Amino acid sequence: MSFTYNRLDKDNVAVLLVDHQAGLLSLVRDYNMDEFKNNVLAVADIAKFFNLPTILTTSFADGPNGPIVPELKETFPDAPLIARPGQINAWDNEEFVQAVKDTGKKQLLIAGVVTDVCVAFPALSALEEGYEVFAITDASGTFNPAVRDAAWNRMSQAGVQLMNWFAVGCELHRDWRNDIEGFGAILANHLPAYANLIQSRTAAENG
Amino acid sequence: MSFTYNRLDKDNVAVLLVDHQAGLLSLVRDYNMDEFKNNVLAVADIAKFFNLPTILTTSFADGPNGPIVPELKETFPDAPLIARPGQINAWDNEEFVQAVKDTGKKQLLIAGVVTDVCVAFPALSALEEGYEVFAITDASGTFNPAVRDAAWNRMSQAGVQLMNWFAVGCELHRDWRNDIEGFGAILANHLPAYANLIQSRTAAENG
Amino acid sequence: MSFTYNRLDKDNVAVLLVDHQAGLLSLVRDYNMDEFKNNVLAVADIAKFFNLPTILTTSFADGPNGPIVPELKETFPDAPLIARPGQINAWDNEEFVQAVKDTGKKQLLIAGVVTDVCVAFPALSALEEGYEVFAITDASGTFNPAVRDAAWNRMSQAGVQLMNWFAVGCELHRDWRNDIEGFGAILANHLPAYANLIQSRTAAENG
Amino acid sequence: MSFTYNRLDKDNVAVLLVDHQAGLLSLVRDYNMDEFKNNVLAVADIAKFFNLPTILTTSFADGPNGPIVPELKETFPDAPLIARPGQINAWDNEEFVQAVKDTGKKQLLIAGVVTDVCVAFPALSALEEGYEVFAITDASGTFNPAVRDAAWNRMSQAGVQLMNWFAVGCELHRDWRNDIEGFGAILANHLPAYANLIQSRTAAENG
Amino acid sequence: MSFTYNRLDKDNVAVLLVDHQAGLLSLVRDYNMDEFKNNVLAVADIAKFFNLPTILTTSFADGPNGPIVPELKETFPDAPLIARPGQINAWDNEEFVQAVKDTGKKQLLIAGVVTDVCVAFPALSALEEGYEVFAITDASGTFNPAVRDAAWNRMSQAGVQLMNWFAVGCELHRDWRNDIEGFGAILANHLPAYANLIQSRTAAENG
Amino acid sequence: MSFTYNRLDKDNVAVLLVDHQAGLLSLVRDYNMDEFKNNVLAVADIAKFFNLPTILTTSFADGPNGPIVPELKETFPDAPLIARPGQINAWDNEEFVQAVKDTGKKQLLIAGVVTDVCVAFPALSALEEGYEVFAITDASGTFNPAVRDAAWNRMSQAGVQLMNWFAVGCELHRDWRNDIEGFGAILANHLPAYANLIQSRTAAENG
Amino acid sequence: MSFTYNRLDKDNVAVLLVDHQAGLLSLVRDYNMDEFKNNVLAVADIAKFFNLPTILTTSFADGPNGPIVPELKETFPDAPLIARPGQINAWDNEEFVQAVKDTGKKQLLIAGVVTDVCVAFPALSALEEGYEVFAITDASGTFNPAVRDAAWNRMSQAGVQLMNWFAVGCELHRDWRNDIEGFGAILANHLPAYANLIQSRTAAENG
Amino acid sequence: MSFTYNRLDKDNVAVLLVDHQAGLLSLVRDYNMDEFKNNVLAVADIAKFFNLPTILTTSFADGPNGPIVPELKETFPDAPLIARPGQINAWDNEEFVQAVKDTGKKQLLIAGVVTDVCVAFPALSALEEGYEVFAITDASGTFNPAVRDAAWNRMSQAGVQLMNWFAVGCELHRDWRNDIEGFGAILANHLPAYANLIQSRTAAENG
Repeated sequence: MSFTYNRLDKDNVAVLLVDHQAGLLSLVRDYNMDEFKNNVLAVADIAKFFNLPTILTTSFADGPNGPIVPELKETFPDAPLIARPGQINAWDNEEFVQAVKDTGKKQLLIAGVVTDVCVAFPALSALEEGYEVFAITDASGTFNPAVRDAAWNRMSQAGVQLMNWFAVGCELHRDWRNDIEGFGAILANHLPAYANLIQSRTAAENG
Repeated sequence: MSFTYNRLDKDNVAVLLVDHQAGLLSLVRDYNMDEFKNNVLAVADIAKFFNLPTILTTSFADGPNGPIVPELKETFPDAPLIARPGQINAWDNEEFVQAVKDTGKKQLLIAGVVTDVCVAFPALSALEEGYEVFAITDASGTFNPAVRDAAWNRMSQAGVQLMNWFAVGCELHRDWRNDIEGFGAILANHLPAYANLIQSRTAAENG
Repeated sequence: MSFTYNRLDKDNVAVLLVDHQAGLLSLVRDYNMDEFKNNVLAVADIAKFFNLPTILTTSFADGPNGPIVPELKETFPDAPLIARPGQINAWDNEEFVQAVKDTGKKQLLIAGVVTDVCVAFPALSALEEGYEVFAITDASGTFNPAVRDAAWNRMSQAGVQLMNWFAVGCELHRDWRNDIEGFGAILANHLPAYANLIQSRTAAENG
Repeated sequence: MSFTYNRLDKDNVAVLLVDHQAGLLSLVRDYNMDEFKNNVLAVADIAKFFNLPTILTTSFADGPNGPIVPELKETFPDAPLIARPGQINAWDNEEFVQAVKDTGKKQLLIAGVVTDVCVAFPALSALEEGYEVFAITDASGTFNPAVRDAAWNRMSQAGVQLMNWFAVGCELHRDWRNDIEGFGAILANHLPAYANLIQSRTAAENG
Repeated sequence: MSFTYNRLDKDNVAVLLVDHQAGLLSLVRDYNMDEFKNNVLAVADIAKFFNLPTILTTSFADGPNGPIVPELKETFPDAPLIARPGQINAWDNEEFVQAVKDTGKKQLLIAGVVTDVCVAFPALSALEEGYEVFAITDASGTFNPAVRDAAWNRMSQAGVQLMNWFAVGCELHRDWRNDIEGFGAILANHLPAYANLIQSRTAAENG
Repeated sequence: MSFTYNRLDKDNVAVLLVDHQAGLLSLVRDYNMDEFKNNVLAVADIAKFFNLPTILTTSFADGPNGPIVPELKETFPDAPLIARPGQINAWDNEEFVQAVKDTGKKQLLIAGVVTDVCVAFPALSALEEGYEVFAITDASGTFNPAVRDAAWNRMSQAGVQLMNWFAVGCELHRDWRNDIEGFGAILANHLPAYANLIQSRTAAENG
Repeated sequence: MSFTYNRLDKDNVAVLLVDHQAGLLSLVRDYNMDEFKNNVLAVADIAKFFNLPTILTTSFADGPNGPIVPELKETFPDAPLIARPGQINAWDNEEFVQAVKDTGKKQLLIAGVVTDVCVAFPALSALEEGYEVFAITDASGTFNPAVRDAAWNRMSQAGVQLMNWFAVGCELHRDWRNDIEGFGAILANHLPAYANLIQSRTAAENG
Repeated sequence: MSFTYNRLDKDNVAVLLVDHQAGLLSLVRDYNMDEFKNNVLAVADIAKFFNLPTILTTSFADGPNGPIVPELKETFPDAPLIARPGQINAWDNEEFVQAVKDTGKKQLLIAGVVTDVCVAFPALSALEEGYEVFAITDASGTFNPAVRDAAWNRMSQAGVQLMNWFAVGCELHRDWRNDIEGFGAILANHLPAYANLIQSRTAAENG
């Protein structure tokens, strides 16, 4: 059986950030909060760095679910921010689907809270519509690792590809020579262990 | 390869609760007991909320396996409760299969104890009969996480979809506007972290 | 070196519940939320069952920390509820200390959120004042197990005794014959595994 | 896509126990040794209970790998015991394959040490030959859980079904009424938690 | 500060086995059940091997707590078996304390279910009475590791020594030459990894 | 035995940050790197907020150990930064000890990499000199949790108190009214879960 | 559906070792460093033992990523060592692909750092080109187990086979008689538990 | 209470390596075998580097316990190697105690297999004799982490100090300037992560 590697192509990708809201984040317990916050902001920086069209959406932001994470709003001041009036699956919201279509992209990167609902539902819907769908695993969180495993399984068996933010960034960038400093800055800011390497190297060279 | 997202449809779903019995529950060690009890009762509340036809069954309830969890009996006083005289796979019991057929539904939500037997066996049998089968992962328990992983793998490779109770509830509900208070009450009762959000929000608004 | 076993004595115990507030609970990640909620309510039921004088206190309940868990307020409608205007260590609040003194008890059971601050600080202060202090470990929560270990170590080295809620209840009760049904009901409500035993036993006897 | 549930059929099953040798067992570290020994002996008791043709094989039993676990030899005194002169994959040994063919069965249950080699290799070979292959996960052990996960993945993706010993026993037995005492004895001997249930039940009935 | 190493002395030790009952065992979740059963029976074999006076006691054995583990009764047919009518702390039962005194021993080995109550309470009481007290950690079980840690801490800070069954056996035996075969048999029966070593050695010598 | 609670007193505390160097940080594996970096920077912000005299030191910063974490240098531009020429225990460096003495403080907060050496050695030395010593557990890292446990044990048994950064901040601040905004900002920046609470509260109040 | 077991064939395999560089190794945290180093060197010894054509490649070895692990260079002094000028996916480097083609092999064993990028990307590319691809799981490392799980899933769903180094060695060797001493030496050097077996056996035979 | 920091003094230390035998090592399961072997050899290298008098002892080396690890014998060809004829506690062997006394040292570093017996027993005996005793935690292994915790607790409460090999080496060395290359070589050989730092640094300087 032949395999086609449909790589992430920065000219063909849109990013969907679903329900990263202050209240809902308190439900996320399959990641340490410091790590999870860092991962979500890394995705935001990657989307901005590659100028990927990005769509934000929230569910009941004026209730217990809480407002959208402010850093996301600040990073994407001009992005569509669709406050869904009730649809749990973002793909059930016509405005959201239209925003996706308007990007003209065929590869969708989806991250959200919680993984088993806010990521899995639109991921499966988009897959059915013919999109290539990639769930950003570590910028999506849920109640515990067992729920995560089940949600990953459901998506993966349907055809969704699972990728962490670092792999997403690398597959989009493809070649360091496209922008060494810009991409290096993202790693330095979001991978403390990589920042250490840079500092040690610089010190040694200047030593 | 094209994908069809056969979503849970509240008009086409039946719920099968298999062998949640007082004795057998002592075998469940892949979940904390407080958490597991809560998950099982959450499924019951969801089934009731959506008026899903629900079938209960037990194995040797008058022996070491023990009586059915009383809350289940109370929540579904009129549901078929099939005391199997010996069949381990509930689907080998004609009365049980007939009860499933009588619901007229094509999507089956199955939870039970233990996952690798009481859930996996009827799930595979139902799949063979042409049903769409969904195992409710966190309302099903077994001896340890390694056994669970193997059971999930076997079911998943056959085509069973793995879903946690929260995702089940959300996929059935689809839109909060269908009943904000009713669905919110289920979450408040079974997700302490969500109850906290509601309380904080209410306090802030009244503050 | 001789050892004196100063057992919990139901006539000499007061209970201090510190900062179990809806917002602060979202910081607790060393326990599963279902389990933790159950543990806190078990302590409340024990305090009520033994008629132990109980003191509630909150920190900034009208801000992000959120309101006190409603079940606690309902269980202890007449208990002192001291809203501290700013003191982090409850023992720095004179009203709180006075309420403790007013109980006339010398053994203090303390539970709270977060363990390393809201439990450890008043525990150490009370110890210095000559009280026998017992931290209820599993009704107190904090950021992660490593923080918990350090907080337990600090308290324990100072002389605080670490006890889980079940041990607290048993050490207070001493003899089942004092009230079999009453104490059994607490276990049945808060230990699902024990409820299973009761149900199986009853079924067998009635079988 | 239609699914056929090829259930274990006690009249069509052979059991292959590969390299459960005293030396090799010291390599197994994905299971507690008490648990693992119990699991292997449970499989042996199941094979004997259902009179399943069973084939034993060892690799270099007269060297560091050590002799076969004595309980296996005792349980199957008349079973073929093939001491392979060097082949790592048991299926590369003609005598072994012939012994399998001689059973005339089409379903193979395989357990062994280590999972990634002694189980995976013959499992994949047998699959290629057209057998239905089931790996008994918890009677097979290896270096650590990460190696186990990779080996399970490789087998599962090829079509091997993963089953724990309890599920194997139940799928073979199908109906308790076939032999309540005999099957109950296996559970009582190999599931301490089930033995407890039986003892409690008996005591209650005699109480 | 000088230290005296009061070693276990087989002529000065009594063994207290508290509440190893079929029902209560279902509460034990800090050990795998196969492992825990093995540990308890290892303690029994050690007590018998060294002819240590042994006292059994149960709590409400005719209710949900269930009957004593049958192997214990069989191993110690003539030992005092004190069915406590209600006292939770066995040391509150005069018959039990008298039985301990009647042994004339000053070193007490205590194991039981659950650690935080059935072990910790009599351990602290005995310590207060001047006994040297040793808790057998791995033949005592409780709800989860966090409860265990707190119970160990409370006992240890009071002066109870924590020892696993293997260390207990070795400290009692002191010198293999006292009985190589007898002590070796205990290890072979209860340490599968040690049985493997013996089998490999014997095979090599016979090889 | 009476107990004195020598609380952290912001007028009597100095902070020692030992060997937080880019190379050495790669040895730290008992914390997630995102979490650890956050913890170290939280300590720095606390030291600055309370104007605590702070001493930085490094070991072979011009070799493989690498340069000091740049954020620390930036936060404390005027702090003593003692580059030790070879002493492993910072307390063996006279300049370092003099710097500590020059602060005139009697309570020392120590954090460093790695816990078992760079923290434990000076902590024990300072304790011997009569200082009250507090190890900041979560801003100190080492090879793995087992090494950490041993190092904590050694320090704790000697009299070092173990505190996490959050508890340090709270014990220093004592009363929110001293500076609600300033202290709140530290929490918002270093406790993502607390930031979420603030955002939700603000949104609710503005809602 | 028929299955073909394309076993590793030593005459048809090439080995690709991607980015095992001193700096990048500090990012690997899903394995203990002692274990990981051992695994990588075991792969090198296996490649050498079977004379497998081996290709080394590095990414920015003269920057923070650091130089290639020296033992690899020493083991393969004549192997192609391709310093990629910027391509993240080694398969995007023509020289690398040419080196692979020049081997004339159709089975590729790939290991590298980090798994989700340096292994997954060329693995998927090679698969697309029609190679049979095997990822050596335990000689490939990444940030944490959750990232590893996602990367394994992505590769496995595409058709990459997951194998640990021990299984790779065994599948290549097939029969101990091909070279007992040579293969035994690899195990003795890289499996301490196996070295123990050999030593015990030798001692027993000489005893 | 004043504290004296009795630091390890290379002129006053002897090393006792107890029962690191090929058979017994198969019982060690609280450490990964690669890691454990490395730790034991690191201790040997440290002992040799500082010319510390070292005593080896074995228990029944000509039986299932197996021969001493050969690397230890090679590193210390002239060290006393006491084959105990039966004493489990090495301190019960007069020859062993005499060998310790002959060193004239007052600080004893002890490592062995298994921690709870072969380390704990002589550690407590030596403590009673007035020695300062240090258990090398990570060069000592046992059945599982729970057994380890209990053994550490028993030793620590008696006054034994717990130290890992890295801390031992650093406390003995005190100042890098005493021998930078020699001590660096030990770290490079036994801390792969440190070796990486050295390689990166060297490359950068040569870059």
